[in-house]
Amino acid sequence: MCELLGMSANVPTDICFSFSGLMQRGGATGPHRDGWGIAFYEGRGVRFFHDPAPSVESAIARLVRSHPIKSHIVISHIRQANVGQICLENTHPFSRELWGRSWSYAHNGQLDAQLYELPLEFYRPIGTTDSEYAFCWLLGQIRQRFPQEPDDIGELSDFIGGLCDRLRGFGVFNMLLTESRYLFCYCTTKLSWLTRRAPFGEARLKDYELTVDFCDETTPLDVVTVIATDPLTDNEAWQALQTGELCVFRDGLVVARREAVPVASA
Amino acid sequence: MCELLGMSANVPTDICFSFSGLMQRGGATGPHRDGWGIAFYEGRGVRFFHDPAPSVESAIARLVRSHPIKSHIVISHIRQANVGQICLENTHPFSRELWGRSWSYAHNGQLDAQLYELPLEFYRPIGTTDSEYAFCWLLGQIRQRFPQEPDDIGELSDFIGGLCDRLRGFGVFNMLLTESRYLFCYCTTKLSWLTRRAPFGEARLKDYELTVDFCDETTPLDVVTVIATDPLTDNEAWQALQTGELCVFRDGLVVARREAVPVASA
Repeated sequence: MCELLGMSANVPTDICFSFSGLMQRGGATGPHRDGWGIAFYEGRGVRFFHDPAPSVESAIARLVRSHPIKSHIVISHIRQANVGQICLENTHPFSRELWGRSWSYAHNGQLDAQLYELPLEFYRPIGTTDSEYAFCWLLGQIRQRFPQEPDDIGELSDFIGGLCDRLRGFGVFNMLLTESRYLFCYCTTKLSWLTRRAPFGEARLKDYELTVDFCDETTPLDVVTVIATDPLTDNEAWQALQTGELCVFRDGLVVARREAVPVASA
Repeated sequence: MCELLGMSANVPTDICFSFSGLMQRGGATGPHRDGWGIAFYEGRGVRFFHDPAPSVESAIARLVRSHPIKSHIVISHIRQANVGQICLENTHPFSRELWGRSWSYAHNGQLDAQLYELPLEFYRPIGTTDSEYAFCWLLGQIRQRFPQEPDDIGELSDFIGGLCDRLRGFGVFNMLLTESRYLFCYCTTKLSWLTRRAPFGEARLKDYELTVDFCDETTPLDVVTVIATDPLTDNEAWQALQTGELCVFRDGLVVARREAVPVASA
């Protein structure tokens, strides 16, 4: 299995603190040694860092941790391989363009062989993971249903939620997905989030000896939501998503939410 | 205008030496302060680094220069903006997926407004540069002509050469393009290359006080070709591509070449 980390904020915010915790799970406090990756959005643009080396030993991960890159939306992933060998093309997040937007996606879980019966039309996998295959199918379905970008985020979210439900029919599907403004978070087994806003307090990492007082780092108007497979701090109240729940954030706030619906038998 | 740097090699090779020269042109010995980017291929996978900050001042560029990332194919670009503001989404190289391969592209030059009469079908620009628009058109044309990957590199190269000729009809179009094995280099005004192979010798950068003896860094079987807008060293014999010439490299060797043909009047 793998671990996911996401962020949605209303001001450009760095993720050094949370990433410091996550990267420890890539070989130190956790077994996720099979690569890591991160996508930072700045407007419509995105920077990626991908590395098939363990995050705890990676020079690039040290740069990401120590060099504050400020972003509205972040998606990160550390990998413990199950399907697909350890190599660069199998390292999340995966990305494709749709509607002139750069979509990124990371997945935690495993999907059974029935997945490969889903037809791919527009997007094809570059690597050999079940995760990327699922992404290519999912984005192709969105493209087919919405040749143009829809105005209604509710309609788009419902459609994406339905696609995620189908993928959940094949196994464990925890997902972070974004098109540069909205962060779509879908849960099968494990995904928790918290929103930091005024009055800010102190946060203490579980995996690394580090405490930050966000009072010193923020303005009273900042709203920053962090999403992770497992809570990264031990002194804050994280909320767990339910199985089959989709939660959509923009600028740090929930803008759409789709409760679990029963999975149709595949 | 901008500067391009590419590499094709038969063994995973780092580009620290050449990149050390190029990054000086991003604010020190050259005026290309408006961002830089680089794509490193490892098999079918690719790592990108993109930064809208000047390369000479960039912490990420320092990492790329000092941390040897070994690759078969590299494309890099430093930008002096003409069309499109300075921001992450306007920073080359641009990338899209076709045939389950990650294509990357960087452009030097400027294309006039007639470019935008070319219809886009599959790929749409994320940023606002003429360069990315041209890439979306070019890759869409390849996709339409070859829904499946062709076996014959000559046929593909001829087709790409013809597309580049059309783009050259709109202005200056110097280009580096790759799909992970082949490096397509097209010249309108400025593009030079050299191949380093045994017996290796010493190379001295023009833009930075640095000399490398490649004898110490290579094996006798290594073949490494470097392509750049302007020669990066002053003690080696660079070959200039001709206007309208396309040269295609694989594993450091020329595998296809298309001489200039007259540009049809647009």
